[in-house]
Order: sequence, then structure tokens, then C-alpha cells
Amino acid sequence: MVDPYVHGYHPRESTRLLDQAATLVDLLHSDTSYPPGSLVLEAGCGVGAQTVPLAKNSPGTKIISLDISRSSAAEAKRKAEEEGLANVRVLQGDIFHLPFPKGTFDHLFVCFVLEHLPRPVEALLILKEFIKPGGTITAIEGDHGSTYFHPDSLAARKVIGCQVRLQERAGGNAMIGRELYPLLTRAGFADVSVSPRMVYADGSRPAMADGFTRKTFTAMIEGVRDAALAAGMMGAGEFDVGVRDLYRTAEEDGVFCYTFFKATGKRG
Amino acid sequence: MVDPYVHGYHPRESTRLLDQAATLVDLLHSDTSYPPGSLVLEAGCGVGAQTVPLAKNSPGTKIISLDISRSSAAEAKRKAEEEGLANVRVLQGDIFHLPFPKGTFDHLFVCFVLEHLPRPVEALLILKEFIKPGGTITAIEGDHGSTYFHPDSLAARKVIGCQVRLQERAGGNAMIGRELYPLLTRAGFADVSVSPRMVYADGSRPAMADGFTRKTFTAMIEGVRDAALAAGMMGAGEFDVGVRDLYRTAEEDGVFCYTFFKATGKRG
Repeated sequence: MVDPYVHGYHPRESTRLLDQAATLVDLLHSDTSYPPGSLVLEAGCGVGAQTVPLAKNSPGTKIISLDISRSSAAEAKRKAEEEGLANVRVLQGDIFHLPFPKGTFDHLFVCFVLEHLPRPVEALLILKEFIKPGGTITAIEGDHGSTYFHPDSLAARKVIGCQVRLQERAGGNAMIGRELYPLLTRAGFADVSVSPRMVYADGSRPAMADGFTRKTFTAMIEGVRDAALAAGMMGAGEFDVGVRDLYRTAEEDGVFCYTFFKATGKRG
Repeated sequence: MVDPYVHGYHPRESTRLLDQAATLVDLLHSDTSYPPGSLVLEAGCGVGAQTVPLAKNSPGTKIISLDISRSSAAEAKRKAEEEGLANVRVLQGDIFHLPFPKGTFDHLFVCFVLEHLPRPVEALLILKEFIKPGGTITAIEGDHGSTYFHPDSLAARKVIGCQVRLQERAGGNAMIGRELYPLLTRAGFADVSVSPRMVYADGSRPAMADGFTRKTFTAMIEGVRDAALAAGMMGAGEFDVGVRDLYRTAEEDGVFCYTFFKATGKRG
């Protein structure tokens, strides 16, 4: 059996998600700011990695952040309190059975959630009902198929493939980023606009190589080692070579590329 | 035998290069502008697709554009005259045996050239000698390994692989874009800075889907059909399915992604 949330819920994973958020905050979130007075739903907030920048960029709004995992929601709540975010309320709950009347929210924010859902269009259709007419959706997803690097390595590409297949077995799609435009369009959102956010790390950008290539992406891939070996997807030796080759791309003459996609749309 | 210039010299190829240039001019060239009085070498100008925006963005400079192919140089010259570009001189000649004293140029511009060279670092070392100390290099390359799309298709990925392997057999590297930082650094350039330029086409960007996905990228892949079949890389039926699947990604619910890399550096 594969855990339905492919990344798991271990403390180390929580650290990874925070490192990721710190490196990517500007790239992904700096242009999301809601007008004062807005009521915003963050559906699937996890441990709150995105909740903090979301709340800080939109003072004067009220943000409700929800996650199905009790421990993640507790962690997100702790973090919001630690940051003194008075405008955030964290709830444990199922985004498909929201404890609110339909049409409650001015804006919906979903980040790194659709990738884990077997039927993302249906999910969007359900969530759309809770947005007021004229309100917006912002959806952010990565795409593991956007990964390439130098030096190139077959083993490194194969370990990434393990993560993609594990996520697929768990009902998700690790290459969903590229699909945001057709997904939001099929779910009936209007004025859909997608903006790719490419992470590029080379020897002149050591903080990005460290924060993203090493501590975010490669750490995530390392995190599926046991599951990949248990599933017989790769041998231990080859898996470790692949991970070593990914770390290699963070050295001074290495290059690493990855792209996130950020989509916005309107409930007509 | 494979033609050493993998894209060939046919009239249709020339049209493709112009369509490409028209779609990509802003993305690739809008931030390249040399100060009046500069002497600029465009090494490997081909049919002049980049020569026109280069000259238009830098009035008051003198640009010498050189290509080894007599017919390409003639075409570039015709185009420069047609556009009334008084600041461009087009020459037929070998970029590795330049008819100029060393240290002649303030700036060197090389676009879609390194991808065709077996030893790009050595090429850069040779060309560097012709830049004045303190002068700059600007290098632009694509990277076919940066290509991904929706709907995904194994056949489409395989036809792209044919182009990559044909270019490799001809001594080039169709995935050189990601390597610009280490290449320029190894060639001894200082202050090397690389900026990825991602092409993203979805249903909201029909001009990009038409101009790039269809008329630039897929047309280029179609152009290697005979060579790929002759080399036994794919069967005709499967090749045609791959090309059809690439065109499919330019439809309203399709998505196409490709990344160019633009590097600048200084001769110390």
C-alpha cells in the first residue's frame, strides 16, 4: 500500500516543506494580494507553508485555511500563531465537505493540492460553488516533467520517475502543472490565465541551488526511497546513484531547472 | 551521411526560421541593445533572422554579420537591405578564421550557433580573442530537453528524440541551452549571467501556439522526417503519429512548453 499523501507526514518532510516555502515565496506568491475585507479560503493548507506568505501579503483580509490532516492543521495553526497572524483561522476538515454555505468566499487559494487528487476537475467544480460569483481562484502546482539538469543522468531521471509513478499509484499526478489551463477551463472558470514560474539554479545562484535543488527537490526525491524500493521500481544501488547525481547538479558547474505553474480564473 | 547543419538549407527551412524569429523576437532579443558607436560581431548569422532585430534594437552601432553558408549570407544580406538596415554588413566567412585582427569587437552575439558545434568551449575560446577586453558576449540557445506538453505523448517525445540524436550525430547538441553557464564560465568569461526564456502556449495564447508550437517547433521536427527514417530511428507510421500529437498540443485545450537560454558574459 502506498500512503495516499505521497510525501508522507514525517517531521523531516515538514522541514522540507518549510525550506521549500522560504526559497519559493517570492517566485510563487509575491503577486498574490487580496483586497482588504476579502474572505479567502485556502483549501488544503498542509503545515501552513503557504499560509504565512498568503496572510502577510494580504493584510486586512480574513483567511480560512483548511486541511484534512489533524497534525498538519495543528502545525499550521501553531505557525500562524508564532508569526502573529491575526487574520488566519486554521481548521481541520475535508475540502470536499466544507462547513460553509455555498458562495461564502471572495477568493479561493489552492496550492500543491490538485496534484494529489484523482479527479481534479470534479474537485474544482465542487470548490467553485463556495466562491462568490465574480470571485477568483488561484491555483499553484509543480510539474516533475519540467525537470532537467546538467550534468544529465539517466539514473537521476529514473529516481524522479519513481516519484511520478508513486504519486500516480496514489491517485495523483506529479506532472499536473502544465495542465492547469485546460483543468480550470473545463471546470468552468472564466478568464483563466496561467503564468509559468521557472526555478533556474546555476553556479551564480548558490542559494537557489542549495534551497531548491538540494533541500527541496532532491530531498523530496530522497524521501520516496523506501516506497520506491518496496515497490520494486529501482534497485537500492541505482536509486542512490540517481540521488547522488541530482545533488551533483547543485555543484558550481551544475544546472537545475524546474517549473511551477500559477493559474488564476474567475467564477463567472 | 547526415548534413552537418541538421536543419538543412531548404527554402521551407528558411521560412521556418523567419516565423520563429517573428514570434520570438521580443522574448529573446528585446533586452539586447548596444550603445551607439559599438562594433558588434554576429557570428553565424544564418539567413539573418536575428540580424534584423539585433540591428533595429541597436541604432548607431555597426554590426558585422557572418555566416559560412554563401546562400544564407546572401539571404541575410538581401533581408538587411530590404529592411533598410544601414548599420549591418553581411559577410560570407568562417567564424573560426575571422578576417579581422584580434580584439576588434566591442560585443559578440552568437545565437543558435553553439548547438551545432562539436567543441563549443573551444569555439568560445577562439571567438573570445576577437572581443576587446571589457567587451561582452551574448549567447542564445534552445534546449530540446526542455520540451513538454499536454496531452503528453510517447510518440511525440520520440520524434523530438530523433532530432536530438540527428543533431548529436552531426556533432551538435540540441540540449545545449541548459549548459550555457558552465560553457561560458569554462571559456573564461567573467560575470556570466543566464536568463531562461520560457515559451508557454495554451488556449489563451493562440498566436504563440500557432507561431511557435506549430510553425516553429513542430515544423522543425517534421523537417527531419526523411533523415530520421533513413537512419532507421523510427518507422514512418510512428513518426507521423508523433508529429500529429505535437500539432495536437497546439489545439485549444493543449499546452506546449519550451525554454531558450540567454547568457551574457564579459571578456575580463
